[in-house]
Parts: sequence; structure tokens; C-alpha cells
Amino acid sequence: MQDTPKGSRLHIAIFGRRNAGKSSLINALTNQDIALVSDIPGTTTDPVYKAMEILPLGPVMMIDTAGIDDVGDLGALRVERTMQVLNKTDLAVVVIDPAAGITEFEMSLKENISKRNIPMVAVVNKADLITPEQDVLALWEKELDLKIYSLSAQTKLGIEELKRLLIEKAPADWEGTPVIGDLLQGGDTVVLVVPIDTAAPKGRLILPQVQTIRDILDHDASCVVVKERELKDALANLRQPPRMVVTDSQEFLKVDADTPENVLLTSFSILMARHKGDLETLVAGAKAIDKLQPGDKVLIAEGCTHHRQADDIGKVKIPRWLRQSVGGELHFDWVSGIDFPQDISQYQLIVHCGSCMLNRREMLYRLAVAREKQVPIVNYGVLIAKIHGILYRALGPFPLAQMILDE
Amino acid sequence: MQDTPKGSRLHIAIFGRRNAGKSSLINALTNQDIALVSDIPGTTTDPVYKAMEILPLGPVMMIDTAGIDDVGDLGALRVERTMQVLNKTDLAVVVIDPAAGITEFEMSLKENISKRNIPMVAVVNKADLITPEQDVLALWEKELDLKIYSLSAQTKLGIEELKRLLIEKAPADWEGTPVIGDLLQGGDTVVLVVPIDTAAPKGRLILPQVQTIRDILDHDASCVVVKERELKDALANLRQPPRMVVTDSQEFLKVDADTPENVLLTSFSILMARHKGDLETLVAGAKAIDKLQPGDKVLIAEGCTHHRQADDIGKVKIPRWLRQSVGGELHFDWVSGIDFPQDISQYQLIVHCGSCMLNRREMLYRLAVAREKQVPIVNYGVLIAKIHGILYRALGPFPLAQMILDE
Repeated sequence: MQDTPKGSRLHIAIFGRRNAGKSSLINALTNQDIALVSDIPGTTTDPVYKAMEILPLGPVMMIDTAGIDDVGDLGALRVERTMQVLNKTDLAVVVIDPAAGITEFEMSLKENISKRNIPMVAVVNKADLITPEQDVLALWEKELDLKIYSLSAQTKLGIEELKRLLIEKAPADWEGTPVIGDLLQGGDTVVLVVPIDTAAPKGRLILPQVQTIRDILDHDASCVVVKERELKDALANLRQPPRMVVTDSQEFLKVDADTPENVLLTSFSILMARHKGDLETLVAGAKAIDKLQPGDKVLIAEGCTHHRQADDIGKVKIPRWLRQSVGGELHFDWVSGIDFPQDISQYQLIVHCGSCMLNRREMLYRLAVAREKQVPIVNYGVLIAKIHGILYRALGPFPLAQMILDE
Repeated sequence: MQDTPKGSRLHIAIFGRRNAGKSSLINALTNQDIALVSDIPGTTTDPVYKAMEILPLGPVMMIDTAGIDDVGDLGALRVERTMQVLNKTDLAVVVIDPAAGITEFEMSLKENISKRNIPMVAVVNKADLITPEQDVLALWEKELDLKIYSLSAQTKLGIEELKRLLIEKAPADWEGTPVIGDLLQGGDTVVLVVPIDTAAPKGRLILPQVQTIRDILDHDASCVVVKERELKDALANLRQPPRMVVTDSQEFLKVDADTPENVLLTSFSILMARHKGDLETLVAGAKAIDKLQPGDKVLIAEGCTHHRQADDIGKVKIPRWLRQSVGGELHFDWVSGIDFPQDISQYQLIVHCGSCMLNRREMLYRLAVAREKQVPIVNYGVLIAKIHGILYRALGPFPLAQMILDE
């Protein structure tokens, strides 16, 4: 409940042959007996996600993948699931089974990891059971063209060194830009407009709102949190105008009207789009809305499977807005969760959710797939601002993105 | 992640003999196949908690208890665990096995539920398998002295009626007082002081802070969220002074100094103490600190098992403060999670956590146990204010509690 959000954790994925000792390695790293450790090869079928604290690395998401040297139908599914994991992996650990050494499997794993520019650490586990001769290890290192660290999850030999290595190899930019902090100076005030509609879970704020408040505090600024109806009075009550107003996208129009021209205005979705991915790509995608033709195909992608409201944004509102914008019928497909189709070339536009449940790596992957296939991609927040004709103003804090819109 | 907090859900517990059909009833209520349904009696051993949405009732916590007519050692443990569930139950559903009818078990269950003033609904499940004759049902109702509703989880017969009944029977006051809303008027401003220390999880706010922000918005007021260091400037930036300042207890002294005399000041812990339980009892408990003697026994009770910091509040800080206050050694015991000892008469003081992971019912139960045994009970927030000599000011918004302190 009081945990670091999933999307803000460094995602460390553990790969390796069945029974190479992946689960026991995770236990050794965390000093916990959480992962099911079994001597029967292939116990782990689907990737298992474990939110953990690895000191001094901090909050991480450990992903215990299925052993993917499996054969048969189930094996093929496992391979696919495991490859999907790579789309969100910030740091890969490949566990080599000393009984098997470097096989085609490890080689192809390394190739897939390298292709995606994911930092990789290779270890040989169970070093207490089978100690590879020094020259065997050297041979493997040569085959893999990578240093291999010898350790034993059971005796904890080499575990501390592995932790140091993980810290060292963790990509410096995995968190991306701050949510808002880099746009602020100490002592600034930000006004956050948080509507309370029927979709808001009782007693809670939604994650992007909490993350924004926290990031403001982390950067020595303060914020005023207010519903749209009280915004005008709250602004009038401030002696110094705020540095910025941030609103829920769905209240953009009202908040635009109530926020003085000289105050910067943006939305939580636009902040998260920049934090989680690449605002410029999404703004370029927004421009493609004007080129949509009746009959075009649009993919709507959501990162989680949430309880749908009657006027659900992805299912109802966005299709309606786009149809109105195009002045005709469009063909919509929807995907949610980890499913993001490989083949997207049939679409003229992809509309993605705010991805609060995805990590940055996964969002960057999806943006890269779209760019590669030259399919414009926009997200909910950028689309809403565009449809309501206020995207230009909402990009005020981001001059580069504003330029792209102007081009 | 974006869910209603556990403590803010109506807790509905399902009791009944082994295999009376408790799990299948939960499934029928929620249209989900979540509970493990089995034809083997006694599948459910420990109580299982399921956060669910039962429309139109809203977010609830369903508690699937073990069948407690079991015998033997495991049976005794089950009975104890199930009885612990009663301490947090807002609404009890007793499922009667039509093959067994009303036995001593159902009678004792009803007695235990009634004793605690918990509203109770009795149902007979599997009405499609074994239809009790009308006069048998009438006999059971007479034995139990309660109306029994006939339903079938499998065919959904009677499920909608049961939902209506649950809504009707849910105690009106189960949520207690609002966190802060009843102290505010529309348009008010509240200043919230949220320190960011090493204990604050990355990217998050802690639950009482989020609940307070949300409750302020729900009551048409707005809030300024600020770290203790920026409080002075944030106050100076408001044209109208705020209705109230609410601070994390650990910053009480600094915030007290920076908040003008004429502005009400309290803490998140004191707000939550009132919301979750009974502020007056805790203030009476705080007065007992002055009567502690060296050698006295103090019980420190926490509602959850959290990651402990080096200067943990429950393990380190509070014992240190109390020793200083007493001017001598004290004997401390600690309990956490659902364990709250029945026998507390050996203690001269109980210090309870903010109970953000407990529901109101459970907290009221613990307070009642303490009152019954005449053991003073205080919570972290009230204790901290007391130790720092600012409890009187922190109770400014609560005149009744202030009077108790004055007595």
C-alpha cells in the first residue's frame, strides 16, 4: 500500500536455462525465501514479478523468468513470454548452468539482450556444487565474449559482489526525467487540479497525482491541491502566482479558462508522457489526427486492465472524439496489459494510455516499435489536449515539443 | 495500486461449517471465480482476505473464514483465527449447511457475533441441492431466533436479494467520522506538512497523507502540501490564513513554531486516531504517561509488519522518549500485525501505532479491550504530541479531547 510504484522500480530480469538456479539467486539477493525453489527443472512457467528492496540499490522489480530452453507447445509460449519480458528489462542477469555451459540458448539470449541495449551480467550459479575449472570458465567467457561471475546462491558466495555489479551496471537514465521537478525552482508553488469523479477510487488519489505531489516536495517546492470548481478561488488566494498549473486532462477546458494567460498550464498525462517516454514522439503522433480519414484503423492500447466505467475514456470517449474529428467512421481495435502487437503496420494511429502501470523501458519500446513501423502514436493526455484545441498551451513548459507541433 | 485502502473497506466476514459453501457464496456475490471452491471439506484453513467491489455496495473486504467446526489441533488454531476475524468484522454472514442444520456451532457463532454488536445475516446455501422443507427452515429460524435466507450460489438464486440485505444491514457508522472533512467548510484551505525523510517510500506519499488530501477535496476545500522547511513561506504566500495546519507528528515542534498562534494545528496521527477510533480514550491514555514508574511494563502494538529503520519509531524512539520521561528503565514488549494479546492486564501502558492498516472496527475492539482491563492506551501521534509538550495545542480542533486533557 505504501510501496514504491511498480513503474518506478528498476526492472531486473533473471534469465537462464531451466533449473540453472534463477529462483534461488533471487532469494539470495533479497535474503528472502519468496521464490519457489525447486529441484524439478521448469518449475517457473510464467514470469514472476517480485517487488523488492535490494539494499543499497533501492526498490527494484525482480522478474523471475521461465527457463526458456524448453521444448514443445508450452515451451514456445514460455519463450514468447520471456521475450516480452525483455521489453521492460532495465538490467538483465543471465544465469549459466555449470552442468550445461554456454549453449546456443545463452548465445541467442545474449544477442537479444544486446540488440536492445540492455546492460547484462552473466553469472554461473551453484559454484559450490560444480566448480568450473578456471580454464573452463575462461573458455565460456571467450564463447560468450563477456565476463562470467562465479557465485553460489546457497552459500551466499559472491552475492555481495553481484549486488555491487548490479548497482554499477544499472543504466543511469533508467528513471528518465523527473515528473516535474526539473521544471521547478526551490520555493515554487504548483497548483494541481484533481477532479473527484465517479472513477476516483474512494479514499485515494490516482498514482500520477501522488507521484507529482511527491516530486514537487522532493524538489523543495510546494503545491496547492484543489478540485476544478475551487481553482479560481485557490489561485486568487496566492500572493505569488504559481509557477505552473497541472490538471487532470478531462478538466482541461475549464482549467484553461480559469488559469491566467501568464501562468504555465499542463496536464498530469503530459507530465507522465515525458517522464515515462518521449513527449516529442507523442506530439508528432497528435498531428496525425488531422490526417485521419474515414475508414482508417486506430489501435487503442492500455497498460492495465481496469474496471471500465460507462463512459470509459478508452472505449467510449476517445473513439467518439476521433470520429467527430474525422467526420466519419473509424475502425478501432483495443489491446490491454502486456499485449502490444508486433504487427501494427495496419494502423494509421495508435492511441496509448498514460501507462501509469508500465515502466519507462516498456513505454520506450512501444514508442520505438511505432517509430520503426512509421505508425503515429499519441497518448490519452496529448490527444485530449489536441482534440480540445489547447495542446499548444499545454506544451508551454516544453518548448521543443511545442516547436514540433508548430512545424 | 489505485485501490481503496484496506482499512476503508466495509469488512464482511463469511462464517459457517466446513463446506457449507462459503467460498462459492463469495464467488456468487462478486461474479468472480477467485475463491478456491472445493468439494473437499475444510479447504480454507486461514482466513482469506479479498478486496472486492460489490455493486452497488462499493469497495468491501470479504473475509473467507476457515470452517470452524473442525476438531483436533489444527481445528483449535482455526477457531482462534476465526474468532480474531470477529474483531474486525463490520457485518457477519453465517452460512448454514442444509445437510447439518442448526447445531451448537451455529448457536455459539451467533452468540459471539451478537455479543460484539455485529449485524448478522444468516443464509442457507445450496438451496438447489437440498431444498429444506418450509417447516424445517421455520424450525431453524426458531432455533436461531433469526430469519434465514435461502439461496443458491450456483444458480445465483437469491444472490441479488442477499446483496440488498447486506446494504441494508451494513452499520451506518462503520466508516466513523471523516478524516478531516467535518472540521472544514467549503472553500477552506488546509496546509499539510509532509516531511520527506529516508522512511518515505520513493515516489509515494504515505496513506494517511493521501487519505487526508482526498477527504479535503471531497469536502470542497483545498490544501497546500509542503515540506516543513518551506512551511513558513507557504503560509506567507496565502492571502487568507488556512483553516488548519496538519503535520506529520515527527515535525511537530518545528511546525508548532512556524504556525501562527491563531491557526489551528494538529497531526495526521491525531486525525487518523479520531477517524479510526476514539480520540478521547487515547488522550486519557496519554495522561497515564505522567504516572509511569521505573520498572513498569509497556506494550507497543503495531498493526503491520513494516521494514524497520535504524531509528524506528516503535522500536527505538518511543522507548527512548518514555525512558526519559520516566527517568528510569521500563520493560517493553512488542506485538505486530493481527496479534493483539488477550491478556494485557500486566501492562501499565499500551502504545499503539497509527493503525493505517487496520480497520476502524479492529481499532475500536482494541480500545475496548484496553478500557475493559483498565489499561491506559495511547497511540504514536498522541504520545509524540504529549512528549513534546504540544498535545494541548494539537487538540485545538477537538474541544472534547482537550477538556479530557485538562481534567
